[in-house]
Amino acid sequence: MDICRPTLILDQSRCRENIRKMAMKASVNNLVFRPHFKTHQSAVIGEWFREFSVTTITVSSVSMAGYFADAGWNDITIAFPVNTCELPAINRLGSRVRLNLLVVSPDAVKYLSQELTCSAGIFIEIDTGYHRTGLLPQQVDEIREIIGICESSSRVRFMGFLCHAGQTYSCHGKEEIGKVHRESLQILGNLKKEFGKDGGNILVSYGDTPSCSLMDDFPGVDEIRPGNFVFYDLMQYFIGSCSFSEIALIIACPVVAKHPSRSELVVYGGAVHLSKESLLHPVYGTLYGLVVNLTQNGWTDPLPGCFVRSLSQEHGVISVSPEIFRETRSGTVIGIVPVHSCLAVSAMTGNPFTGAASKSPYKIIGT
Amino acid sequence: MDICRPTLILDQSRCRENIRKMAMKASVNNLVFRPHFKTHQSAVIGEWFREFSVTTITVSSVSMAGYFADAGWNDITIAFPVNTCELPAINRLGSRVRLNLLVVSPDAVKYLSQELTCSAGIFIEIDTGYHRTGLLPQQVDEIREIIGICESSSRVRFMGFLCHAGQTYSCHGKEEIGKVHRESLQILGNLKKEFGKDGGNILVSYGDTPSCSLMDDFPGVDEIRPGNFVFYDLMQYFIGSCSFSEIALIIACPVVAKHPSRSELVVYGGAVHLSKESLLHPVYGTLYGLVVNLTQNGWTDPLPGCFVRSLSQEHGVISVSPEIFRETRSGTVIGIVPVHSCLAVSAMTGNPFTGAASKSPYKIIGT
Repeated sequence: MDICRPTLILDQSRCRENIRKMAMKASVNNLVFRPHFKTHQSAVIGEWFREFSVTTITVSSVSMAGYFADAGWNDITIAFPVNTCELPAINRLGSRVRLNLLVVSPDAVKYLSQELTCSAGIFIEIDTGYHRTGLLPQQVDEIREIIGICESSSRVRFMGFLCHAGQTYSCHGKEEIGKVHRESLQILGNLKKEFGKDGGNILVSYGDTPSCSLMDDFPGVDEIRPGNFVFYDLMQYFIGSCSFSEIALIIACPVVAKHPSRSELVVYGGAVHLSKESLLHPVYGTLYGLVVNLTQNGWTDPLPGCFVRSLSQEHGVISVSPEIFRETRSGTVIGIVPVHSCLAVSAMTGNPFTGAASKSPYKIIGT
Repeated sequence: MDICRPTLILDQSRCRENIRKMAMKASVNNLVFRPHFKTHQSAVIGEWFREFSVTTITVSSVSMAGYFADAGWNDITIAFPVNTCELPAINRLGSRVRLNLLVVSPDAVKYLSQELTCSAGIFIEIDTGYHRTGLLPQQVDEIREIIGICESSSRVRFMGFLCHAGQTYSCHGKEEIGKVHRESLQILGNLKKEFGKDGGNILVSYGDTPSCSLMDDFPGVDEIRPGNFVFYDLMQYFIGSCSFSEIALIIACPVVAKHPSRSELVVYGGAVHLSKESLLHPVYGTLYGLVVNLTQNGWTDPLPGCFVRSLSQEHGVISVSPEIFRETRSGTVIGIVPVHSCLAVSAMTGNPFTGAASKSPYKIIGT
């Protein structure tokens, strides 16, 4: 591969297989598949979902909704508490696509019912224990008020409850994730029963990548919204959501220096490429990526004893085994499996100094 | 201010004052001022340096050198171990500007002496204790070999020794930084003596923001290359390099949710805007930013008891005091002082989803 700067390499066949498996899981469970597009942020990759009959998507900002609306997607949920400062952009968007918004307070939906010039579906975000945002399940008065406002408005239409059980990100393995999963679905199921007329006309929208990857049953759920699964990454690997062979994205980085006294390589590839997301490895300690060799058709599994020890703006300092140190020369291009693919993609998108020559930051390989 | 999405707000008068003070310090000490432009990454802000007669700059990549060459800068040091994979771009660059490259091995300079089609100045990077990259001071054989190759080549010209004493970033206060500073200058001074013909024709290029901000004497140094000082940030504040009133950059973020049970606000402003750089605060623990109120002409000092507790891709979760919680409404725009301004700027540059509508991510205020 002809690589001279930090470059996102995307294995298309792994990525399409990840999409296929998740689409199958949704289909088998009779769930609407509404994948989160914030991970790949790419109209090209978005097209790969259409082959599995995906027509509904999730995004995390009004800007991103606009981008994917331009790319022909017309049923979009913005899974972020509605930012009322962007009302004009929301109205423009709502005039051309079927739009769902997220609210976490009666004030927000009151504002929307008065100010929207389009119609929009409304999901109430429920906090099932992650404590990032969302109404707590016991805030039934607020929930009732929101539903009431929707019922008396022609612009806002109550759709149901949405949850991102992000506490799965601090879990390890199927058992721990299963516990969070069951608790979250219990909470959402109770709300559906409490507020639904026979529970029939209230949707439950659910799904982080760990739950959607590891769980097989989704009782009471109507749609899933995983995002990261499209590429996976080291964080997901250590949670237990994926194997190394399912990770579809690495960053290729040229080696620019060797330091024999500490068996370390320095690569062109730093915090502005990988992001500063780290994880605590049981053996290596804090790390910012694992190291792979590039091959004819892709890359190897992570090399034993090799990890990204520190990052500054453009430098990556990589601790390597004596064998890899001997074999690697300055000018060699090695691969780094990122800790968090969403952030690496965002870092590499658009900024002319991070190496992305064109609008798409991906070098796509495989068939 | 008319802000609806995460927006970098740059206080021009603070920024120009930071530039003026550093230019004065260089001038008083008879040092060439070669500021590092990787922090602001902006041709517009680059122009502000010309008012202080700056004609020489530092960048961290070949791409960034190309951008600033296009903006009329013609004496550029790429302070990053030369990435030989980019030889064609380096040659194009060297044909139009006076270029200095950084080497950390005889192999690299051998390669350059054979392959460059332009001429280039060569700095040897010396590791005075940061252990990111650079030759150790005791690697005199390698240093001698590099100088020898330069002397026998018409393309590569030995310029001197360059050091980034990044270990100052784990220091607190003038005394600790002074110790690193004196040790580093001692090492560089010894090398200059050992390898210089009377020491006269070998340059010493030095300077991280903490040292250049806090130190007044630079014995043996010929030029300084600080970068971050142009904006400063929380990391520099906690190191002791600056006061709050010298920090020239914040990120304005709309509040999108309030969570009374935990006295927390959620803003539109996450890891893709601020970066995941964190610091360990003595009272608040790990934080990703401090909080300010926007004013008519800028912003306040950080609000007591308020800090960014966690970041996900687009969400910032902010722990606030009861007073601020009461006063702040959804839709209010608050300011966040970033931990690391260089990374926040890089995150906000170019990516259409981080809120930067145009090529420049800055909203410039002040005169």
